[in-house]
Amino acid sequence: MFRKILFPTDFSEGSMRAIQRFNRDNESEVGECIILHVVDEGRLEELLNGYAYLYKREEREIKDIEEKLKAKAMEKLTERAERCKKMMKANKLRIMVRFGIPYEEIVKVAEEENVSLILLPSHGKQGFSYEIFGSTTMRVLKKTKKPVLIIKTHEEE
Amino acid sequence: MFRKILFPTDFSEGSMRAIQRFNRDNESEVGECIILHVVDEGRLEELLNGYAYLYKREEREIKDIEEKLKAKAMEKLTERAERCKKMMKANKLRIMVRFGIPYEEIVKVAEEENVSLILLPSHGKQGFSYEIFGSTTMRVLKKTKKPVLIIKTHEEE
Repeated sequence: MFRKILFPTDFSEGSMRAIQRFNRDNESEVGECIILHVVDEGRLEELLNGYAYLYKREEREIKDIEEKLKAKAMEKLTERAERCKKMMKANKLRIMVRFGIPYEEIVKVAEEENVSLILLPSHGKQGFSYEIFGSTTMRVLKKTKKPVLIIKTHEEE
Repeated sequence: MFRKILFPTDFSEGSMRAIQRFNRDNESEVGECIILHVVDEGRLEELLNGYAYLYKREEREIKDIEEKLKAKAMEKLTERAERCKKMMKANKLRIMVRFGIPYEEIVKVAEEENVSLILLPSHGKQGFSYEIFGSTTMRVLKKTKKPVLIIKTHEEE
């Protein structure tokens, strides 16, 4: 159906459930799928605060940690890539890691790549089921001009 | 892609724009599409208040107006059916009229018909572009367990 799907993942359970439910309902092929993980710059900040005694917080050092987090994320995406490609029935699959504020990067990549759809779980890592959406999902919905497919991930079935 | 799509429409411009954008991005066929219009019971109430001097507000009379509104909606849906079927690339198309509170009926029909997707415009008749969603869209998103495809309809392109 959709030419090019952007699937942002935070590696959470909700995120994996979204792709499973998509797989269950989707019967035809997807042209291309981009799986994106955004290394949250806010988390890096927390990390640095937590280990403040270990780091001098020099520019170079921070950049180094950022690169390590991105490499780790790339590794995780690579591990999941084959399975995701199959589940998405995607002819082509690309993995992508960005650094920044997750919703901002998601909206940016959707534009840059001119995707035809963003696939989002209702709740990712930090979502609570009593909220309608997780905060990243809500912010993407607010900012993007692209169609968004919301998959509920926190209901009891 | 999707086996069975529910497309609720309030006959608004936003609603029509959603189907056009869906058509633009969707390349494969849809198994079945149900186009639903809910005659808003709140509007009937307004109508009756506005014309209070004309009606005795008897049960029978109210039922009669309800039936007329439903018939009118069915007529409008019928007019649009062929075009919608084509735009949705739907193998099968059904039209349906309900009476009640729009978001409640949409959620109910989605369950009863076990649709695989609800297609919603970000804003329908009463939406304002400064809001993220129209109120019916927001309520459906909150209540349904079904995947929801949100199509932004109020941005400048």
